Amino acid sequence: MSDLASSACEACRIDAPRVSDDEVSLLIKEIEGWDVIDDGVKKLKKEFSFSNYSDSIDFSNKVADMADKEDHHPQIILEWGKVTVVWWSHKIKGLHKNDFICAAKTNEISKN
Amino acid sequence: MSDLASSACEACRIDAPRVSDDEVSLLIKEIEGWDVIDDGVKKLKKEFSFSNYSDSIDFSNKVADMADKEDHHPQIILEWGKVTVVWWSHKIKGLHKNDFICAAKTNEISKN
Repeated sequence: MSDLASSACEACRIDAPRVSDDEVSLLIKEIEGWDVIDDGVKKLKKEFSFSNYSDSIDFSNKVADMADKEDHHPQIILEWGKVTVVWWSHKIKGLHKNDFICAAKTNEISKN
Repeated sequence: MSDLASSACEACRIDAPRVSDDEVSLLIKEIEGWDVIDDGVKKLKKEFSFSNYSDSIDFSNKVADMADKEDHHPQIILEWGKVTVVWWSHKIKGLHKNDFICAAKTNEISKN
């Protein structure tokens, strides 16, 4: 398990610092398969593929459970054959280290 | 329960007819709160609001269960405070009566 995956989210306040571009360049290397997207707000996005619907539901629920424990809630898009997870920090309208921690935890869930 | 909500999906083949614009105008009246969107493919979309995350997870799972029983799978977007459900028929790249049936069933689930 990576350092990120074993970390816990800290409380994210409205005045918390966004992750800098340099930090993003380093942190993104630790979370395999994740892309930074920008739809006006920078976010982390990854698609996970599944060969059956029940596995995709199960994965979605595990990610949602982890999210609720971390009190940090992503967008989870459940479709037949795939689940797309998008992490960002609403309060700061961008990326916080919490998002990289939760992306790493999402990768761990996908390996189980 | 509406007639739509008590109907079952029929098998949708690649040569099945799309619902005509006139039919859409009639059927949309039977599914409260749903909008037709067009992102290149016509789809039915509705947002459902929740005051806590566990209720939104529970709703997502009930919609996914219904979808699997009907063998017709929507896009379910789970976020904190809301779940967005989008129905369309992949095989015909548009709207089939099945989508209105499943939208009506989704409304029934939201009332329980």
